[in-house]
Amino acid sequence: MSETAPQGPEFPPGDGLLPAIAQDADTGEVLMMAYMNAESYAETLSTGRAVYYSRSRKKLWRKGEESGNVQLIRAIYLDCDRDTILLHVDQLGGAACHEGYKTCFFRQVTPDGLKVIGKRVFDPVEVYKKK
Amino acid sequence: MSETAPQGPEFPPGDGLLPAIAQDADTGEVLMMAYMNAESYAETLSTGRAVYYSRSRKKLWRKGEESGNVQLIRAIYLDCDRDTILLHVDQLGGAACHEGYKTCFFRQVTPDGLKVIGKRVFDPVEVYKKK
Repeated sequence: MSETAPQGPEFPPGDGLLPAIAQDADTGEVLMMAYMNAESYAETLSTGRAVYYSRSRKKLWRKGEESGNVQLIRAIYLDCDRDTILLHVDQLGGAACHEGYKTCFFRQVTPDGLKVIGKRVFDPVEVYKKK
Repeated sequence: MSETAPQGPEFPPGDGLLPAIAQDADTGEVLMMAYMNAESYAETLSTGRAVYYSRSRKKLWRKGEESGNVQLIRAIYLDCDRDTILLHVDQLGGAACHEGYKTCFFRQVTPDGLKVIGKRVFDPVEVYKKK
């Protein structure tokens, strides 16, 4: 590769966050979307586990550190502008969503309102006992 | 549904944008990520075609209006926080990316740098003659 070839995501100056989409590597289901900064991206690469940046807690968010539902990285892709990250992951524990569903996108927009289409994999009250 | 049931995405005050992920309804491939405001979301619902908000052009972006590569909506999902939108679409023309690839995520991060894994569906110079 030439020295000038783009090798990774282009994190913006300032808050330096980029959106990162996690997709089930086997089924293709989109599990969640969160944000990464350069540090969380680097740790994702070095550990092979998804690490995000929590905008509410203002710190690294090692996905699954509390619930055990770690995301093992199978592949990482960048979009044409290198400003969105796509992760193919093995979702341990079978659920990405803190509400206990496999995917955070467990509700469909219908003419009659939102319809829950996912099934709960775990009870969030049991898993997050601190809450 | 009760009157207080959440019925749609919760657009933030201020710039009012939420990320929207477009996924191929048949293959599950993640095609692109862009942004929507309330107006573009409403037009997406009413027309059945994906309409985004272009942050660079600061106006509605009717996907495919120039290239013809319209995205027909098959289903819409919201995440647990109702602040990310997932679209299942039929991608007309076979390519979502303005660079001529099916998906904007046509490059994989590898230890040797970025590797193009997608194949070009169209020549962007031909399609976007104004550029």
